[in-house]
Amino acid sequence: MSDVWRDPSARVEDRVTDLVARMTLGEKVAQLSGVWGVDPEVGDMAPMLRDAMGPDLSWEEVIADGLGQLTRPFGTEPVEPVEGLRALAERQRQVMAANRFGIPAQVHEECLTGLAAWRATVYPSPLCWAASFDPALVQEMGARIGASMRSLGVHQGLAPVLDVVRDLRWGRVEETMGEDPFLVGLIGGAYVRGVESAGVVATLKHFAGYSASRAARNLAPVGIGPRELADVILPPFEMALRAGARSVMNSYTDTDGVPAASDRTLLTTLLRDTYGFTGTVVADYFSIAFLRTLHHVADTNQEAARLALEAGIDVELPSPNAYGDPLLAGIEDSSIDEKLVDRALARVLRQKCELGLLDPGWEPTEADEVDLDGPGSRQVALELARRSVVLLANDGALPLRARSRLAVVGPRADTYQAMLGCYSFPMHVLVHYEGVERGLEIRTLREALADSHDVTYALGCPVLDGTDEQIAEAVAAAAQADVCVVALGDQAGLFGNGTSGEGCDVADLRLPGRQDELLEALIATGTPVVAVLLVGRPYDLSRHAPDLAAIVCGFFPGEEGAQALSDVLTGRVDPSGRLPVSFPGAGSTQPSTYLASALGQRSEVTNVDPTALFPFGHGLSYAPATWGPVTSTTGPRWDVDGVTRLSVELGNEADRLVSEVVQVYLHDVSASVVRPVRQLIGAARVDLEPGQRRRVTFDLHADLTSFTARDLLRVVETGAVELHIGASSADIRSTLSLELTGAARHVDGDRVLEPVITITEV
Amino acid sequence: MSDVWRDPSARVEDRVTDLVARMTLGEKVAQLSGVWGVDPEVGDMAPMLRDAMGPDLSWEEVIADGLGQLTRPFGTEPVEPVEGLRALAERQRQVMAANRFGIPAQVHEECLTGLAAWRATVYPSPLCWAASFDPALVQEMGARIGASMRSLGVHQGLAPVLDVVRDLRWGRVEETMGEDPFLVGLIGGAYVRGVESAGVVATLKHFAGYSASRAARNLAPVGIGPRELADVILPPFEMALRAGARSVMNSYTDTDGVPAASDRTLLTTLLRDTYGFTGTVVADYFSIAFLRTLHHVADTNQEAARLALEAGIDVELPSPNAYGDPLLAGIEDSSIDEKLVDRALARVLRQKCELGLLDPGWEPTEADEVDLDGPGSRQVALELARRSVVLLANDGALPLRARSRLAVVGPRADTYQAMLGCYSFPMHVLVHYEGVERGLEIRTLREALADSHDVTYALGCPVLDGTDEQIAEAVAAAAQADVCVVALGDQAGLFGNGTSGEGCDVADLRLPGRQDELLEALIATGTPVVAVLLVGRPYDLSRHAPDLAAIVCGFFPGEEGAQALSDVLTGRVDPSGRLPVSFPGAGSTQPSTYLASALGQRSEVTNVDPTALFPFGHGLSYAPATWGPVTSTTGPRWDVDGVTRLSVELGNEADRLVSEVVQVYLHDVSASVVRPVRQLIGAARVDLEPGQRRRVTFDLHADLTSFTARDLLRVVETGAVELHIGASSADIRSTLSLELTGAARHVDGDRVLEPVITITEV
Repeated sequence: MSDVWRDPSARVEDRVTDLVARMTLGEKVAQLSGVWGVDPEVGDMAPMLRDAMGPDLSWEEVIADGLGQLTRPFGTEPVEPVEGLRALAERQRQVMAANRFGIPAQVHEECLTGLAAWRATVYPSPLCWAASFDPALVQEMGARIGASMRSLGVHQGLAPVLDVVRDLRWGRVEETMGEDPFLVGLIGGAYVRGVESAGVVATLKHFAGYSASRAARNLAPVGIGPRELADVILPPFEMALRAGARSVMNSYTDTDGVPAASDRTLLTTLLRDTYGFTGTVVADYFSIAFLRTLHHVADTNQEAARLALEAGIDVELPSPNAYGDPLLAGIEDSSIDEKLVDRALARVLRQKCELGLLDPGWEPTEADEVDLDGPGSRQVALELARRSVVLLANDGALPLRARSRLAVVGPRADTYQAMLGCYSFPMHVLVHYEGVERGLEIRTLREALADSHDVTYALGCPVLDGTDEQIAEAVAAAAQADVCVVALGDQAGLFGNGTSGEGCDVADLRLPGRQDELLEALIATGTPVVAVLLVGRPYDLSRHAPDLAAIVCGFFPGEEGAQALSDVLTGRVDPSGRLPVSFPGAGSTQPSTYLASALGQRSEVTNVDPTALFPFGHGLSYAPATWGPVTSTTGPRWDVDGVTRLSVELGNEADRLVSEVVQVYLHDVSASVVRPVRQLIGAARVDLEPGQRRRVTFDLHADLTSFTARDLLRVVETGAVELHIGASSADIRSTLSLELTGAARHVDGDRVLEPVITITEV
Repeated sequence: MSDVWRDPSARVEDRVTDLVARMTLGEKVAQLSGVWGVDPEVGDMAPMLRDAMGPDLSWEEVIADGLGQLTRPFGTEPVEPVEGLRALAERQRQVMAANRFGIPAQVHEECLTGLAAWRATVYPSPLCWAASFDPALVQEMGARIGASMRSLGVHQGLAPVLDVVRDLRWGRVEETMGEDPFLVGLIGGAYVRGVESAGVVATLKHFAGYSASRAARNLAPVGIGPRELADVILPPFEMALRAGARSVMNSYTDTDGVPAASDRTLLTTLLRDTYGFTGTVVADYFSIAFLRTLHHVADTNQEAARLALEAGIDVELPSPNAYGDPLLAGIEDSSIDEKLVDRALARVLRQKCELGLLDPGWEPTEADEVDLDGPGSRQVALELARRSVVLLANDGALPLRARSRLAVVGPRADTYQAMLGCYSFPMHVLVHYEGVERGLEIRTLREALADSHDVTYALGCPVLDGTDEQIAEAVAAAAQADVCVVALGDQAGLFGNGTSGEGCDVADLRLPGRQDELLEALIATGTPVVAVLLVGRPYDLSRHAPDLAAIVCGFFPGEEGAQALSDVLTGRVDPSGRLPVSFPGAGSTQPSTYLASALGQRSEVTNVDPTALFPFGHGLSYAPATWGPVTSTTGPRWDVDGVTRLSVELGNEADRLVSEVVQVYLHDVSASVVRPVRQLIGAARVDLEPGQRRRVTFDLHADLTSFTARDLLRVVETGAVELHIGASSADIRSTLSLELTGAARHVDGDRVLEPVITITEV
C-alpha cells in the first residue's frame, strides 16, 4: 500500500481514509485532543482551570502518539511574538518527530477582538462590528486577524461568538453582535469570510443556546423551546456556516435538560445532516468533563467521553480530560464504539490535510520579525471604531465647539482599559502579569480630546466604589467647564474581575458602582453633560437621559477607540453606528429584546413596560441623510418562492460624509404561530459623500419570511405581511403591504438567508 | 324515538347521544358559550372587558336557542345573596323556557379564596394553603367552598390555580401554591377533592405554562421547552385530575409560539388521550378572541373559533365572541367541521347531565335565607390561617411578652384589605363600589393585637408613596415601645390597582413604595422590630433581615388572618407554616426557584448568586419537634417498579401543640438529562400534642423518581439516587443513598404521583 495520505495530489478523502487505516488506537485518540501548557500560578484566569487541567503527564508522554491540537501558545501568557514563534516551531518539530507519521499539531488561539496575543492589534469588540452595520469592513478586519494568526503558525481561531443576546444581564453580551439573529449572522458571516480568507479556521460558538441561560447567569440552564432555538438562536450559525466556517464549538449550557456537549440532535442531526457541515466540532474548554462535574449526566469521564463522541464532538479542548485515557479505556472495554473515534479522526485529519499539515515537507512557520499591529491593522481598527460609535441622544451640544473648555471626567476617561473587552489579550491575560508592559499603544479618551481641546480631568469615581471627595472633584471640574464629558462604563474582566465579561453577570442594569450618583452630581452643576459609554452591555439610563446634553455609546471600541470617539465628539467624523442591542427603559425588565411578539411588548394587561429607551437599530447623525419614498417595483404580490424588490433613495445635503443604515423589518400580520412584531430581514449601510444621492435596492426572497411552524418544519406561509422600512426598529419611515401568494412552502438548509442589496448612484 | 335524554335511569352516554342528535346547529352552538351581564360602567376591573364583551344582543336573543353557561351572577357586583339567588332562579327559568329542551345554563363563579361573592367567607389565599402543608384541612375548606356554591345554584368554580411559580415578579404568584410541582399538586388536589365532594365542578387553571411568561410579565410569551413543561408545569394538573376535577381552563399564554387556546397537542393529545380526561375544557375569559387580537394567529373570530374548537376548547367564556355567530358561519361555509361542535357539545351535555341539569323536574335552587360565612366556615378559615403562618426568623422576640407595650405600625397594620388576595370579592369587585359595605367581619392586625396588648398605632407609610412625617410618626411610636410590630406588604388588586395580583407584575423584588425605608428607620430606633409580611409574593428582605428581631409571613391569610397572626405572635399558637416559595437572597435574580440543577444554583462561574434568604420549605417553631434518626426498612435497593420505605420518629417536648413538616427530596445523582439538585417527592405535616411521639412513614414508589428523558417519554432510570429528608430544602436532617435497580422503565398516565404516608403513635 502506497502512502496515499502523504500525497498532496491525492483526493483529501483518500488521504484521510488511508491514514485512519494506518493508525493505532492510541495514535487515533491522540489526534482528538489538545494540550495546554498553563502556568498553574496564573490559574485565577478562570475557576475551571484549577481542577480540570487534564492528566499530569510530561510533554514527552503527551506527544508520544501524536497530538491533535496545541492550545494557545501565544494567548496564555505574554510571549514576545518572535520568541513564541520560535518556541512553537520547536514544539511542532518535537510533535512531528514523536509520532510515526510526522503530523504536527493544529494550533488554535482566541481571536475575538483580534488575535489574543501580546502586541497584537485589539480591534473593536463585536458589539461595535454590529453597530457599524458594515460587513465589508468587518470582513477586512477578519482577514487581518486571520493573517496575523497565519504569520504565527496558528491554524484556528476560536471566534466569532454568534450567541444572540436574550438577556442584557449576561456577562458575555460584550462578546456578541447583539440581539438580532439576522444582524449577528450578517456580521458574523463577514468575520468568518475574513478569517477563512487567510486560510485560518474560524470557529463558531457557542452552539447553541448559551445566551438564553436562566436569569442570564453564566452556564445556567437554558429553558427555551425548539421554535425559539430554530428561529432566534440558530440562524446566525446557518449564515456563518454558509460563509465558510470550518469549525464549531459547543455551548457549555444545557437546553431543556440536554447539555449541548451531549446533544446528538444538535451536533450531528442538525449540524451535519441538515446544514451539511463537514468541518470539526471542538469542545468548549473542559465542557466534556463538565458533563460529569456540572451537568451530572455522566458518572465518569469515560461516560462523558462516550456521550460527547456520540453526540458529535470531535476534539476535546484544551486538554485530554475525557478524550485521553478514559476514551481509550472505553474503547477497550467496548462501551465506546471505535467507529466513533474514526469518524472524529477523519474530520480532524481532513482539516489538517486541508491546512497542509499532512503534506511532505511541511515546516513550522518561522520568521525573524513579526509585527502584529502594523499601520494597516491600526487603520482598520480606527475605521471600524469610527463607524461603530453610536450617537444615542444630542440636544445640540455635539459636536463639541472648537476652543470650548472641557471637563473630561469619569472612571473610563483616562484609562486605556476602557477601550478593551474581556477577550482582548490585555484584559484576558495581561492583567494577571503585573509590571509587564502593555505592548500596544492605546490612548485614553482624555488624551485624545486633549489634542483639540483644553481639558481638565478628574476621576469622579472608579468603576466600582469611590469616595465623596472624588465625586466632588469631578463636580468642581465640571462646574468650571463649558462642557463636561463623562466617560462611564465597565471594567471588562473574567470571573469576578470585572463588571462585564465571562462570568461577570449582573443582577440589574444600573450603571456599576457610584456612576449614577456621579452623573446626577455632574448634571446638577448646570454644565452641559455629554455621557460617553464604554460598556459591555446597555445600562438603564432612563433616569438621567432627559438631563444629558448628549449620549454617545462606544461599547469597547478597541485600541483606536479614543481617537474614534474624539473624532465623533469633535465632529471630525459623523456618527453612524446603530444599536445592535436595545437600551432598557425605566422599569423594563429582563429578559427582553426588541424581537418580541405583541404580548412580549408593552401591553395593557401588565404594568411592567419593556419599551426600550433607545431601541434596536437606533443611532443619530449630526446631519441625517434625506430619505426619498420607499418604492416597490414588484407589486403587492410576493410569490412564496419569489423575490420582492424595494428601493429607496437617500441623499446627503451636508458638507461632510454621512451614512444611513436602511433597515428592513418583516411584520407578519398573522401566522400559524406567534411571530415577532418586527424582525430584521435586511439592512444596508449607505455612505454618502457631500451632495451625493444613492439608491439602495433590496431583493428579498420569500425565504426571508420563513419561520418554524407547528410541525417544527420551516415554512413560508401565504397571506398578508408588511415590510417596515426605517432608520431603527422604532423609526419606521415606510410600510409596504404585501401578500405572499402560492402554496405554503417548506424550506430547508438551502434557503435564502440574506437579501441581495444593490447600491447605485443617482 | 323515545326521549332517552330525559331519562335519569338511562346511561349518560345514551342521553347525550340522543340529545346531540335532536339539536339544531343553533341549539348546539348555544350550549358552547356563556353570557355575562357586566355593567359597562364598571369596566375597569380588567382592560379586556372593554372590547371583548361579545355581541350586543338582548337577553332574549342570547337565550333563544338555549344557553351553555351563565357567567358570575354573584361575582360581578355586590348582590345580596338571597336576592341573587332569586334573580338567578328567574334567569334560569327564562333560559329553560326559551329552549326546546328546557335545559338550564351551567352557572360558574370564581372561587379561589372562597366563593367570590358578597358576604361569602374569604379563606386564606393559596400560598397559605401550601404553607400549611395540610391537604386534609384544605380539602375541608374546598368542601365548604363547594357547598357555598351549591347553596346558590352555582355548578362550577373557576379554581384552583395550579401554575407553578417560576418567577416571583409575576403578579399572580399570590394565586398559586408556590414553586414546587408536587406541593402544588398535593394541595391543589386536596382543594379539588373538597369542591368536587360538594357536587361542584372544579376547574384547573391555567393549562398550561402561564407562570413561566417572559420576565414574569402577565400574558407574555412562555419560552420553555417540552421537558420543563412535562416535569415542572404539568404534574400538578395530573395530580388534580386524579383528584377528580371535571373542568380545565386554558392558559392565556403561548408556549414557544403556540397559544394554549389553539394547542391541540396540549388540550387533546395530552389532556384527553394521555390523561384520559373526559370533562370540559373552558376558555379563559376572552382567550379565543385573543387568538386574533393578541396572538395574531387568526385573522378573524371565525378562524379563532376553528383553532380553539379543533384544539379542544369546548366552551367559550365569558361571552360568545367566537363561539357565537362566527362559529355558526364557519360551519355553514364548511370551514369548520360540525363534528367538532358535536364533540364539544357532548362534553358539555355530559357534564350537565351529571349535574342533573337534564333531569325532568329540575328546578333552580331557591332559599329564603343564605349564610355564606357561617361559624363553621370562619373556623376553618381561622384554622387554616393559623396553620399557614410562617415564622421566618426569630431572635427570641417572639412570642411577644405579655404586657409588653407594642408599637403596631406599617401600611398593612390597620386595614382589613391587608388580609385579602386579588381574587377575593372585596378586592376583585367591591373596590369598584364605593360606599357599599364590606359585607364581612374582617379585623385588622392592630385590632387583634389590641385584644392582648397595649398598642400604639402609626401608619408609617402607605403601601406606595407616603411622607417623611408619616415615617417619623411610626419611628416615634416605635421608640417608645417595647417591641415594634411592623406590618408590611402588598395591596392586592387587578391591572394596576395593586402591587400584587393579576396584571400587577413588578420589575424587581424590593418592597413596594417606601416600606424598605420605613423598616430602616424603625430598626434605627433600637426597639426590637418584628416584621409581619402580608404579601402576595416574597420580597428581598436581605438588607434588613439581620437587624430584625423576627420575621413572620402571613401571605394573604383571609378574613381570620388578623386573629391567626396575633395568635402566633403572642404564642397562643405555635407557628407551623413552611414556605411554598423561596424568599430571595441579596443579589439574587429572577427567574429562580429552589427547583434548579447544579448550574441553576450558586456556582463559581458567575458572580450572581441565586441562593435564597429563606429557602423553600423553611419555617421555624417556638419549640421545634425533635427528630429521631431516619430509617429505611427496605434497604438500599429500590426496584424501578417498587416501593422504598423510610420513616422517622418525631417528638414534642414542649408544653404546647407543635407541628413539623417532614420533607422528602429526591436527589438524582446522575441521569440521562440534567436534573434538579433537589425535588420534593413527599411531605407530611405531623401535629404533636405535648409529650407526644409519632412516627411518620413514607412508602415511595419508584415512579416518583421518574422524569422526561431525551426521547420525551417519562422514564424511571436505574442507578444511584439519594433521598434527602429534612425540615426544609436547605435543612436536610438525613440522607439515604439508594440504587434503583432493574431495567429502565417507561411510565405513563397511570404512574404513582404521591407517596403513601402513615403516621402512627409511638
